Amino acid sequence: MNFYDKLKFTSDGLIPAIVQEQSTGRVLMMAWMNRASLEKTLETRKTHFWSRKRQKFWMKGEESGHTQTVKDVAFDCDGDTLLIQVEQNGAACHEGYKSCFFRSVEGDCSDFKVTEAQLKTAEEIYGKKS
Amino acid sequence: MNFYDKLKFTSDGLIPAIVQEQSTGRVLMMAWMNRASLEKTLETRKTHFWSRKRQKFWMKGEESGHTQTVKDVAFDCDGDTLLIQVEQNGAACHEGYKSCFFRSVEGDCSDFKVTEAQLKTAEEIYGKKS
Repeated sequence: MNFYDKLKFTSDGLIPAIVQEQSTGRVLMMAWMNRASLEKTLETRKTHFWSRKRQKFWMKGEESGHTQTVKDVAFDCDGDTLLIQVEQNGAACHEGYKSCFFRSVEGDCSDFKVTEAQLKTAEEIYGKKS
Repeated sequence: MNFYDKLKFTSDGLIPAIVQEQSTGRVLMMAWMNRASLEKTLETRKTHFWSRKRQKFWMKGEESGHTQTVKDVAFDCDGDTLLIQVEQNGAACHEGYKSCFFRSVEGDCSDFKVTEAQLKTAEEIYGKKS
């Protein structure tokens, strides 16, 4: 059976893709793919997504150079989520952190803390203010 | 600032939550939370979700006993995805696998393979056929 037949896309034709750094196990980001971006990801072994906000097909790192090389593509029991193992070039987060998940809730649940170092500022990455 | 103010829920009041096993880095599952289930998760330190299919608030493991003890709750740069570190009791997947992501795409992209052992059958977990 073709693996695409196991996948369930939303009514908008999208599926969420969790991106994990294979070497460290670090979860880097979550973004949405449509079928075309998934096919392009498998074909080129570079992650491609669909931006819901910009309504645009994009390759991760096309502006920043922070590309992701695909090592494995898994899908869950319901076929409605992808888990992609990658080798990350530079920072995954557009705010300059390795991972987009750089903040955690503090114990009392009313505040949060930054849990990692910023590698670059958005300005350094994109040459403009964030 | 209260961390809830940093979160963006969908128009349905939901936010996707990636669940990762803290000790191994293994991504176990992805499910949806509403604000009530997130509050309950933080209060009890056991994961609670919102089932879109069943339109129901549920605690992970309430039937199977396969609960998740919460170790950390992080959120991403856009505030629209959660990453929850847990200690997993038993299998996270309702199909009896440790992780819901137990299948990966094969090299030629037309097929897939099962990448891990099934710990229990659904029948063993729930006492009924899956």
